[in-house]
This record gives sequence, C-alpha cells and structure tokens, in this order.
Amino acid sequence: MIDSKEKKIEIMAVGSELLTPYFQDTNSLYLTQRLNDLGMKVNSKSIIGDNWNDLLYSIQKSLPHSDLIFAIGGLGPTQDDLTREAFSWVLKKDLIFKKELYRKIEQRFQKRGLPMPPVNKKQAYIIQGAEVLNNQNGTAPGLWVQSDSKDIVLLPGPPHEFKAMFEQSVWPRLQEYKQGYLRRKILKITGLTESRVESLLSDIHVRTPNLNLSLVAYPGQIEIHLTGFSQKKVEELKDSILNRLQDNVFSTEGEELEEIVGNLLVQKEKSLAVAESCTGGLLAHRITNISGSSRYFMDGVVAYSNEVKKELLGLNPELIDKHGAVSPQVAEAMAKRIREKSEADFALSTTGIAGPTGGTPQKPVGLTYIGLSWKGGTQVTRNYFLGTREIIKFQTTQKALDMLWRYHYHRGNSRGKDTK
Amino acid sequence: MIDSKEKKIEIMAVGSELLTPYFQDTNSLYLTQRLNDLGMKVNSKSIIGDNWNDLLYSIQKSLPHSDLIFAIGGLGPTQDDLTREAFSWVLKKDLIFKKELYRKIEQRFQKRGLPMPPVNKKQAYIIQGAEVLNNQNGTAPGLWVQSDSKDIVLLPGPPHEFKAMFEQSVWPRLQEYKQGYLRRKILKITGLTESRVESLLSDIHVRTPNLNLSLVAYPGQIEIHLTGFSQKKVEELKDSILNRLQDNVFSTEGEELEEIVGNLLVQKEKSLAVAESCTGGLLAHRITNISGSSRYFMDGVVAYSNEVKKELLGLNPELIDKHGAVSPQVAEAMAKRIREKSEADFALSTTGIAGPTGGTPQKPVGLTYIGLSWKGGTQVTRNYFLGTREIIKFQTTQKALDMLWRYHYHRGNSRGKDTK
Repeated sequence: MIDSKEKKIEIMAVGSELLTPYFQDTNSLYLTQRLNDLGMKVNSKSIIGDNWNDLLYSIQKSLPHSDLIFAIGGLGPTQDDLTREAFSWVLKKDLIFKKELYRKIEQRFQKRGLPMPPVNKKQAYIIQGAEVLNNQNGTAPGLWVQSDSKDIVLLPGPPHEFKAMFEQSVWPRLQEYKQGYLRRKILKITGLTESRVESLLSDIHVRTPNLNLSLVAYPGQIEIHLTGFSQKKVEELKDSILNRLQDNVFSTEGEELEEIVGNLLVQKEKSLAVAESCTGGLLAHRITNISGSSRYFMDGVVAYSNEVKKELLGLNPELIDKHGAVSPQVAEAMAKRIREKSEADFALSTTGIAGPTGGTPQKPVGLTYIGLSWKGGTQVTRNYFLGTREIIKFQTTQKALDMLWRYHYHRGNSRGKDTK
Repeated sequence: MIDSKEKKIEIMAVGSELLTPYFQDTNSLYLTQRLNDLGMKVNSKSIIGDNWNDLLYSIQKSLPHSDLIFAIGGLGPTQDDLTREAFSWVLKKDLIFKKELYRKIEQRFQKRGLPMPPVNKKQAYIIQGAEVLNNQNGTAPGLWVQSDSKDIVLLPGPPHEFKAMFEQSVWPRLQEYKQGYLRRKILKITGLTESRVESLLSDIHVRTPNLNLSLVAYPGQIEIHLTGFSQKKVEELKDSILNRLQDNVFSTEGEELEEIVGNLLVQKEKSLAVAESCTGGLLAHRITNISGSSRYFMDGVVAYSNEVKKELLGLNPELIDKHGAVSPQVAEAMAKRIREKSEADFALSTTGIAGPTGGTPQKPVGLTYIGLSWKGGTQVTRNYFLGTREIIKFQTTQKALDMLWRYHYHRGNSRGKDTK
C-alpha cells in the first residue's frame, strides 16, 4: 500500500485475557481503521499476556523492526500490569515519580468520594522523558516515548479509555505522519473459485506504488480488496478488473448479495417468494435481514417433510414419488407453486441433501437443485457443494440469490453500484 | 494454568486481511480452546500480513522463544500465499514437489467437474522432511515440521479447513504434550441478564487452585465457563451453580438451545412447526441447522405480508384489522393455525418490529410477541429487545425456543444433560 520510506507500525495488545478463547482484541481494529484513514498501514500485531519475560521478549523483538509501536493495556494499578515497567526496562529509561500526576489520580478518587487505594500510586510513575497523555475516563495515564528515532505510545486497555485518549491526544500528533487519505473498494464475486479469479486477473499487475490488490475467499464468495491513495488509480484498477470479470462481480460498494437483490427488486417494483427445503429457512432469513425487505419479500415456506411439500405447496404427489424430493422437477414445481400461491413476481426454491447424513451414491451430500420462477418461465440449476451442513446451506442460498441477480443483470440491469 | 517447565506456544495468523479493520483472527480462539483442553497455555499470538520481509522477520524472531508454533493461513494457491515459502527459507529446508499430493489436488477439482488451475501446482510442494496433514475441505495441505527440537505446524486459514484438519491430524499428535486433561463445563443460560447472573452467584467463591469460573455474555445468552484439572471439583462447582440458578440453565454440555429442543422432541417423539413474521426464517434456519432435524421439524411459513398471513395461514382478516399484525392475538392465531395445518404436535410463532424502521410510540422497534401452541392450549409472551435488526431477530428466536424448552422442563423433563 505504502512505499518503503514509510514507517513500520506494530500494535501490541497486552493482557492475559486476550490469550484465552473468550476475548478478542478489538482496540486494534479501531486503531487500524484510524491509522488507515491517514494512509498508514499496520505491519504486524502481537498479543502478549501479563507475563514479565514474554513482555520483555516481545518488546525486544519489536523494537528493531518498527518505527511506531502502540502498546495497549497493562497500565492499570495491579501487580499484573507491567507494560510501563517492561518498556522502561528494555529502553533503559528510569521510571520517575510525578507529583502532579499523583495529585490528579488522587483527585479522581476524591471526586467520587472514595479514598485512593495505595496500589494506584504506581500509575504516577512515568518513563523518563515521556510525554503524559491525559486519561479522561480512568486513572491510567498514557505515555508517548521517543527513543532512537522511534515512537512508542502506551495506551490503556479498557476500550472507552483507549478510544477517548486516542482521539484527544494521539490523533492530532499523527497528522504529521499522514500519507494522504486511503481510498478503498471491495468487489464481491460469487460463482467462481479463488483460483479461477486469480487466473482471470493474472495479467493485471499492480506495480503502482501505494496501490494494493488482495483476494479474500469465503465459502461461496470471493472478495477483491483495492486500496490506494489516489481515487483515480483505484477507480482505474476497479474498471480493469470489472472488464475482466464481466458479470461475475455483483457488488462494488461493500453490499452483500441479499442487499443487491433487494435493491433490484425495489428499483423494479417486483416481489419475491421462496420455498425452501434443504436451506431450511436460511434463504428467507438472509433476505429479511435487509431493512425494508417487507417491501418486496412476500413470504416463504420451509417444506421439510414430503407431506408438507404436497400440502402447503400443493405439489403433485406423483412428481415426488416419480423423481424423488431432490430432483430438478421438484425444484421447478416448488418455485412455480410458491410464486403462484403468493402472487409474487419471482420465486426461488431449494431442494437437496445438506448432510451430514442422508446422502446416497446417486444423490450425495451437497447435491442441491435450485429453482427460479418468473412469469415467463423457470430455470433450474444442479449444484454440488462441499463442506459442513451450514456451509452447504449457505452456498445454496448464495447460488439462489445469484440466479435471481443474474436474471436481472442479463436483462439490462447492471451491477449494484449503478442501482442507487 | 501450567508450570514453567512447559512448552512455549505461539500462534501466528498470516494474512493481510487480518491487518485491516474488517477481519478478526478467530481461528486462534478455537485453537486456544483446544490447547487449553489439554492443559496447554498459549504464550503469545502474532498477526502478520502477506509480506515476505515481515513474515521472515516474524518467524526468525519467534523461533528462539517458542517450542511449538502454529502458523495459520497463507497456504493458498496465490502469489500472496507465502507461509510455506517463508518457513522453508528460515528453516533452510528445501521445498520438494510431491506427485501424490499433486494428484490429490487434481482429483479434488475433477470431482467437482473443474479443470485444475495451474496456480494450484504450488500446493503440491512441501517443506523437506515435513509430514503432510490431509485437508478434507480444501486443496491446501497442512504441514508438520520438526526442526531443532521445535515443532512447527502450518495450517490453512479458511476456518472450516483449519478446524477439520486440526481435529483430524493435529489433535491426536498433541496428546503427548498434555498436562492433564482440563475439565470444562459450560453452563448456558437464557432469560437472565449478566448482572442478574452475577448477583445470583455472588456468594460462590472459587479459591481452589486450578479451578476457574468466568462469565461470557452474548445477546440473549450468558455462559458460565468452569475449568479445572479435577473432574470432581468442577462437578461440585457446577452443582452448586445449578442449585442457585434452578431452571435457567438449559445446557451443561455445550449444546445450543436448538439442539436441546431438538433432543427433547426426538425423545418425546413430538413434531414442531413454525410461523414466522419478524424473525423472517431465522427460527426455521436455527432448528434445521441441527442434523437429523427432519425427524421432528415439519414445516415453516415465513409470513411477511398481511395478505400472506391471511392466505397461507388462513388467519381471520378481522383479527389483523382489529389488533394489528403485531399483537398477542395474531401471535396466538399464527401458532394455532400452523400447528393445525401441518398436524404438528407443537408450533411456535413470532410477530414484531425488527427495525430499524417501522416502529411507533405504541409499538416500538424491538417489541415482539411469541406464540407457543400445543394440543391442550397456547401461551403468548410479550418481549422488548434492544439492539440491531439481527440481534432483535436472534433474541426473538432464542426466547421462542426457550418457551418450548421450559414447557417441557416444567412438565417433568430435566435439562439437556439428562436427556441423552
């Protein structure tokens, strides 16, 4: 993203709770976003427990490789809180008692009518030469240390203390480092594998400095992330990718597929109904996650048993007996029947084997048929997805929404970006 | 948790997307949980982008300080994926082409009827002397490398590939390191706030070494995590908590509420149907996420428009006109009608304002009515949930499942643990 003259940035999150299965370090996401806003990229992150040796090792390891280090957490009053002490040790700078800081901490307790516990005294010690960053929401002061042309910023861990201190005291000082404002585009693709996308883009080489392209793969969705300082360059790169991937990019503004499909239906004033078997409600759930979906979503039927398929949807019993519930004929009939019953303009249907049990050699786990019905006709696709039950359910809904999107796309509509 | 003779463990997550504000490294939480299960503690975690120099630096610095390194991600087929290459470089071990691995990758594509893109060839190279870990859900093989009495385990980044590989190939090999089995009990609670749970437990003090109690709060669910090396002590602690929380704990073996409800229905040989308005398919989706749910789940209707409520469900139009669609009367009628129509033993219904638009002073966003119908009667609850559209949808389904669970619980059934 940024050329090599630029500062190397590391974020260290300190706290043993961050090394359990239950807590995520979310402060670093906020910090990353704000640094990105200034065109600054984070090079690495590390998470260290409240352990003296691990902390010393980690700081020693980070210093030679980084120009700007943010250490978040471990500034509290307890014996566990060692960040201040560990940096003091590694930087060979003493901890100095600051009377005015002590008074400030004391006043904070007095204001709340509480005596100051003796342990809080250690928060009045600062690393020699450091600038104190005011904490408006807690007792732990932050510190900005400069050492051998490196900047080290110590910030408290509780998110509301961290955020307020960052905005008040760190953000203004970062302006001198800014590289420009970062532009970002996310292109979302479904129906292609990661390696297929990569080979389609193989002759697009990003050699411009400060311009970056990366692929992120999910089950049923590939994303292309473009970032750069020049809006023009990002747009040009986007256009050349769109040119290559044709109708496979459904979103260029970060929208999910259910949102894009929803926008199309609103724009066309069309309605939608669904009849689900193997997706068990997930298709309706995704569609109704979009605020305002009641404008176009009519209704859904989750038909798990064959009896219900026959009764609620009014399917011909012979059809199921002849072809089986997992068949293109049943997918087609489900889509047709729910569309007629609900008087919707479009209908989608799913039937298949979500697994992990219920597969046969002829109809293995992952085999799904998806139907799309509209006034003038129907389309059925046969799909074979790999993965867990939840992944097979998701991929089936993704493909169903994709069928509806492509139906509109190929009838003169364009991608999400133009539908706003 | 563990004494210092123990192996130092580092988890490295590799991927530039993990250094953006948009992605969390969740694989390491899963890995930490499983390591903790064996009494092994994680000493540090690091996150590095898809950048050759940063990756080399990070590996070089981690090696001397760690005995066991897990590197997750960066094993894909693209030019960005450098983990294999970087470890090969630092460890000074060549990359060797493996024909049988190449054939396996090729076969994976053939099975799906796709040609193998040339870029995937690089996934058939392994670090000299490494053991290959089979990937049942993707093309990237894992590698277990031993070097200078250190173990280095390279695993793929996509969570479903990572988890399956870990369980199949890594977990069995970790048994030799185990410090004793950590016993873990997770008590799951719905219908109480975190502070209510805390105050109910305020006189339960855990002072035994190697015994731990922690609360983890999610929207609609509180979990109490108990861990310790002594099965007896963990069980005693569990019993004293159950004693305190009575019928609020729905699960003690890690099951989700939809699983507990499913187990009850299987055990009682009863069936279930749902009629959803504001939850838009999520209730059916959660129920059908459980493998084998086709044994008890009959069908569902997602009735978004009032017309559909009247038609598909056969509701009396006057009822909606008189009380409004969001009313206890409509919730009750929806549950009754779907139960009768589908001939299920039980039925759940939801109607409410999921937001963010559509609220009024009388019927604000977050107001939902939930109906439960059985042969002998009906129950309707009025609820008011705070949060985003998705959180309101989730909390409503949680409460609906909870109503069905409590119905059975108070009719002589006991918690999930005893239903097996």
